[in-house]
Amino acid sequence: MKADGLSSPALSALIEALRALPGVGPKSAQRMAHHLLQHDHDGAERLARSLDTALATVRHCALCHTFTEDEICETCAAPDRDRSQLCIVESPADQSAIEQTRSYKGQYFVLLGRLSPLDGIGPNDLQLAQLIERATDGEVKEVVIATSFTNEGEATAHYIGALIKARAKDKGIELKVSRLARGVPVGAELEYVDLGTIAQALVDRR
Amino acid sequence: MKADGLSSPALSALIEALRALPGVGPKSAQRMAHHLLQHDHDGAERLARSLDTALATVRHCALCHTFTEDEICETCAAPDRDRSQLCIVESPADQSAIEQTRSYKGQYFVLLGRLSPLDGIGPNDLQLAQLIERATDGEVKEVVIATSFTNEGEATAHYIGALIKARAKDKGIELKVSRLARGVPVGAELEYVDLGTIAQALVDRR
Repeated sequence: MKADGLSSPALSALIEALRALPGVGPKSAQRMAHHLLQHDHDGAERLARSLDTALATVRHCALCHTFTEDEICETCAAPDRDRSQLCIVESPADQSAIEQTRSYKGQYFVLLGRLSPLDGIGPNDLQLAQLIERATDGEVKEVVIATSFTNEGEATAHYIGALIKARAKDKGIELKVSRLARGVPVGAELEYVDLGTIAQALVDRR
Repeated sequence: MKADGLSSPALSALIEALRALPGVGPKSAQRMAHHLLQHDHDGAERLARSLDTALATVRHCALCHTFTEDEICETCAAPDRDRSQLCIVESPADQSAIEQTRSYKGQYFVLLGRLSPLDGIGPNDLQLAQLIERATDGEVKEVVIATSFTNEGEATAHYIGALIKARAKDKGIELKVSRLARGVPVGAELEYVDLGTIAQALVDRR
């Protein structure tokens, strides 16, 4: 008899495996497993096959490190993307959010993380050497740092910005380093915006 | 270019497949897929294999309909479980919750649903004929109805209770039909308990 009072090792293994998903605790995992086995065998089969396919085919772009099935991703390979702009993001999800705005037409570099000394993530883990080379290859004219506006994201932005500027100066390259604007979110009522954001929006007023 | 701005059909298929899981929307599915592909290939592999294994081996017990890998589940086959008590629950998860209390030693019947006319779930979908036969086999002396205390669960309990009593009378069998007690949850402060529950606890006071 298992901890859940049911007697199937395969079911217990499935519940345990579902807990690998972020945000899924023991209760949700049980609910998911029961749902799939009771109501959605097709969905479970589809999930197993798509996991296999994704594991076998999805890798990271050699240039920007986002997810792709090719050596170089579509965005990096696209002839119509502006090669003078390089946007630095933490994750493919962040890149995806920016792409969905349709307001950026340059290239990307995906850090696949952020500096986080407490988690043991330092500059070497983010392949910053490759980023610095890319940013100062002479073709790039502007680097847009789009890391998160969390403490770690801000620290990462400062660190990367300083490294890139120093290297550009060494190489004698004109390079603009910008950061996404901080300010009041679109659609927000001032009354409900946190004070730090309002203060920043005042400082950066234009 | 896909809706998420990333260019991998395998990744898009995985995100879509993850949405089959209950409670998982597009954002969570993306986060799960990115997490597995970026940080946890082993977990993804384990999930795919455990889905395959569970789909191949887990089925419903021929007697009580809970999940099992055998023809008859461990609980139904156990020689030390009291065959004079039959507890009726809606789902294997509910059965699991009762088992974990370790305060019930009888047998189960899992409805795998509840009466829900709006969803088109009628008596025939719950295999009530099999339940009625089981409950009135002469060996069972008490039926404990443990469906949920929702409207649908209550309706199911009333319907099943009436059917079983009528059939037992036809057969001339002594059979007690009971229902889980309603009342104030253990650990609750009265001030925060809903009024319907308090009213019920007053009616059922002992």
